[in-house]
Amino acid sequence: MLPEGLPGIRGPMAFRPETAKPLNELVDVLLRGPHILTRGERELIATYVSAQNDCRYCQTIHGAIAAHHLHGNEDLVVKVKGDPELAPISDKLKALLVIAGKTAESGKAVTAEDVERARQHGATDFEIHDTVLIAAVFCMCNRYVDGLGTWAPDDPEFYRQRAALVAKHGYAASTLQEDQQ
Amino acid sequence: MLPEGLPGIRGPMAFRPETAKPLNELVDVLLRGPHILTRGERELIATYVSAQNDCRYCQTIHGAIAAHHLHGNEDLVVKVKGDPELAPISDKLKALLVIAGKTAESGKAVTAEDVERARQHGATDFEIHDTVLIAAVFCMCNRYVDGLGTWAPDDPEFYRQRAALVAKHGYAASTLQEDQQ
Repeated sequence: MLPEGLPGIRGPMAFRPETAKPLNELVDVLLRGPHILTRGERELIATYVSAQNDCRYCQTIHGAIAAHHLHGNEDLVVKVKGDPELAPISDKLKALLVIAGKTAESGKAVTAEDVERARQHGATDFEIHDTVLIAAVFCMCNRYVDGLGTWAPDDPEFYRQRAALVAKHGYAASTLQEDQQ
Repeated sequence: MLPEGLPGIRGPMAFRPETAKPLNELVDVLLRGPHILTRGERELIATYVSAQNDCRYCQTIHGAIAAHHLHGNEDLVVKVKGDPELAPISDKLKALLVIAGKTAESGKAVTAEDVERARQHGATDFEIHDTVLIAAVFCMCNRYVDGLGTWAPDDPEFYRQRAALVAKHGYAASTLQEDQQ
């Protein structure tokens, strides 16, 4: 049913551009808009949630975009996916990743103590809100990608090249310019 | 952290209007845009997924909106939430609700047999795509609402009145006109 040749979320997005437009706008605001968290940190949250949900396409492409923003540090992405508490990231980001992981499990799993820990490490209401929403958005994207049985390339170089394009042009632009890939 | 007085998803949406805008546009296209499935059927899918995710606010407001579109048939909404296979709905909608429920569990849970059953009952690729995306979108909304610990009114009449407003004005308009409530 989906257009051939486009991996991951890009197949269903090309099939239904009316929903792709607001979906990409939402991801652009959250992952690339003005923020306290860096683009790399926000992509790490998206990657971590996609790994928790075992979505191969999303965790690989967003991991590659995170690494792109983090000076090519792919090792850091692997460490965050493995265990954020042991990764060389800020205490604030560790606390936000706990909230993200619990949101992925169920919104009800997030406790007042989780939020308090993030606040104690300097997280603002804005960052806590956006962490929950980024996690929730990727619970959507992961299910969209896997529920429709999309395919994902095996070659890591594919994701690195695509990551550079997305980092440069953004999400909304990337689906409008499929011929770039 | 959230504005007081606004229940469910409306508190975080008022806190972060930049993300509320594309989110409401996405829901408007899916639940109210031109479609083969009726608005009532699409709201039933949203309600069923929200019930599976145990999100009280979402299942109650979308259940009320579904009933509004279904000539006030609240009993049908209760039956669909209880067990779609036993509810007096079309075989096509039953098959789509199976896909929606499995998408909520994990995108990977949807099988080729589930999709084939829906096709045999007349579902098009468009309807199957949108069923997966509606389910995925509500997995997002449910986590957004519960992850931020929002509150939900107890009075069923609150939801009936709100449902009439949303049915008339749509999702995007409803968050722009909070003074209507």
